[in-house]
Amino acid sequence: MQNDLPKGFRAGAAAASFKKAGRDDLGLIVSDTPAVLAGMFTQNLFKAAPVLVCQEILARGRAVRAVLANAGQANACTGEEGLANCRATQAMVAGLTGLGQDEILPLSTGVVGAHLKMDLWLDAVPALVQSLGSRDAEGFTRSFMTTDAFPKFATRDVALAGGTVRLTVMAKGAGMICPNMATMLCVALTDAQVAAEPWQAMFGRAVNKTFNRVSVDGDTSTNDTILGLANGASGVAAQGPEDIGLLEEALTAILGQVSYMLVKDGEGARKVIHITVSGAANDADAELVARSVGHSQLVKTAIYGGDANWGRIVTAVGYSGARFDPAAVSMKLCGIERFRKGCPVNEDQETALTELLKGEDVQVDIDLGGGSGSYTFKASDLGHEYVTENADYRS
Amino acid sequence: MQNDLPKGFRAGAAAASFKKAGRDDLGLIVSDTPAVLAGMFTQNLFKAAPVLVCQEILARGRAVRAVLANAGQANACTGEEGLANCRATQAMVAGLTGLGQDEILPLSTGVVGAHLKMDLWLDAVPALVQSLGSRDAEGFTRSFMTTDAFPKFATRDVALAGGTVRLTVMAKGAGMICPNMATMLCVALTDAQVAAEPWQAMFGRAVNKTFNRVSVDGDTSTNDTILGLANGASGVAAQGPEDIGLLEEALTAILGQVSYMLVKDGEGARKVIHITVSGAANDADAELVARSVGHSQLVKTAIYGGDANWGRIVTAVGYSGARFDPAAVSMKLCGIERFRKGCPVNEDQETALTELLKGEDVQVDIDLGGGSGSYTFKASDLGHEYVTENADYRS
Repeated sequence: MQNDLPKGFRAGAAAASFKKAGRDDLGLIVSDTPAVLAGMFTQNLFKAAPVLVCQEILARGRAVRAVLANAGQANACTGEEGLANCRATQAMVAGLTGLGQDEILPLSTGVVGAHLKMDLWLDAVPALVQSLGSRDAEGFTRSFMTTDAFPKFATRDVALAGGTVRLTVMAKGAGMICPNMATMLCVALTDAQVAAEPWQAMFGRAVNKTFNRVSVDGDTSTNDTILGLANGASGVAAQGPEDIGLLEEALTAILGQVSYMLVKDGEGARKVIHITVSGAANDADAELVARSVGHSQLVKTAIYGGDANWGRIVTAVGYSGARFDPAAVSMKLCGIERFRKGCPVNEDQETALTELLKGEDVQVDIDLGGGSGSYTFKASDLGHEYVTENADYRS
Repeated sequence: MQNDLPKGFRAGAAAASFKKAGRDDLGLIVSDTPAVLAGMFTQNLFKAAPVLVCQEILARGRAVRAVLANAGQANACTGEEGLANCRATQAMVAGLTGLGQDEILPLSTGVVGAHLKMDLWLDAVPALVQSLGSRDAEGFTRSFMTTDAFPKFATRDVALAGGTVRLTVMAKGAGMICPNMATMLCVALTDAQVAAEPWQAMFGRAVNKTFNRVSVDGDTSTNDTILGLANGASGVAAQGPEDIGLLEEALTAILGQVSYMLVKDGEGARKVIHITVSGAANDADAELVARSVGHSQLVKTAIYGGDANWGRIVTAVGYSGARFDPAAVSMKLCGIERFRKGCPVNEDQETALTELLKGEDVQVDIDLGGGSGSYTFKASDLGHEYVTENADYRS
């Protein structure tokens, strides 16, 4: 194993049999020194217990040391008992590592409404702590996968004025994905030295351009959390507008890369629909249109089936709630214009489109023909594999 | 054939081969005398040509004589050419029947973005007019079915002060169903004598309580139209609050019956999810919650699979956008409480629930624990048959 984490971070994992035996479902990352924290969380009103605890820690504004993640149970909609269980898992790890309980950030994913299996936690935590340093970015990512078909992580080195720092992002998510402020679960680590305020601010902007613009099924999870830990172990400070700009650019790019993987791995997804909307009265209207198309079951199944049924796309534009002149709207599918200023065109391009729709990435460009508002959005297609996986997720 | 239409209405149909050969895809209803019109139409900004024409006719406020319906092509997103084609079909029927062109209400359903096949219309209209009187409610309904698995119609006799009148409702729709102001296509006929104003007013209220509260896939069609024709042929007047009330009660009941059939026949649907929301701050919040649950892909696939994964329901409540206290929320699935004031309960009821979820109608009751706002909503489940049907609808 080559440790591809930023300097000063160690990862471990253990198999606790939370859902299936014999695979890692518990992960831990520890920073050797206190790290500056940034975080964004789900807008779902039923925030999972670990989300509430992370929010408390972030609000306190003190440095943190560790991230503790589990798959199997989401510990969401579990009331006071869920909150007590969450704190107990922090306490277990604190007891064996010497870290403060409030320096440990909990992340949970799995079935909503199910309680953590505390007896299994008690059994597994010693091995988990023992394993610290034995896992790389992929190893940690695998420890909190659920229905994910592949692990989603990426690493990038950024040259700042004072030297090179590393950024590593590890995420999970394939279903219940329509992040609102953050994704299912995502941890971003850097060994850059950065102050809390610019770190949180660049996080907000980067997440808004990446994770908040993807959807698998339109279902915003109770557990969406993205955490950023900057421990400064590189000895390189990101300060001044230029360095901060470089770090933000790298962060946005790497979060974009990982959020794309998330749509790519949408439960049972075969294709990613890339939607761009331009010519809207404002960005908010463009967003309404992009999300309406990206969430349309009829559009998603047509793309899945490779059917160039572009009328469904235009229909979803029409009921999006955005205001525009229908006679000014144009639309391209896979780069071929099929609808121009309210009328069908290029009806002879069906064969070409059928061929283009076999690709894994499908481009949809919508021009509302009005103002300068625009938005981009990525969505999964909808196929049999999605139904199969979700008709009996818990078994 | 027993003519179950209200007095003074005759129906016909013909096979025009708009999409498949050998089945009726063109239908006509003629009232022997001028009928009072009520109508409601899609809120989609891309209104189909026949929707625009019906809206013109309704706005003019004059009596009407006929309804002309076709399957195969929706004549939506077809610009000026689509509008001209629509008027040409009215003219063909007017020429052969002696009716005024503006007395004929056009309805179209099928592929969005495809033009009407005018040569096939020219061939078929003579046989269509010839067939008047040969079809009953079912026969007319079959003439504008697309992916419908069964025809949706119902008849009801209403005893008013002056005698008995009949109400017949005929609808089509299985996909692209999330009516907003009206359904896909629906025609309601009565031989009651009723003035335009109370007729349109009761229509608005009845549709709002029925068709506007069902969804198959969340996709609001470009063609949604519901027309009500009252020709007075029974000689019985519906006037005065009591008669109007009786007629409205019957209309609401019969529209509820037919809109339920529509969800029941949701493309590939096996189950109908009946969602009730109470305890909301206001009805608008209750509606947000009900629609959020009814549109959730994860809820719909779980119900399809008979999986009592109630956490997905609560999750959809949480991201609905409604304001409420999560700790006050309770939820019953098939009558069994699984979530009480923010906490899981009755975990031993899983086996009972698995059995109950085998039924075709699944009840979900959500109590937000706040004010007196409430809403009801019906939605289809989401299964393999939906994907199969929609991945290649046009072929």
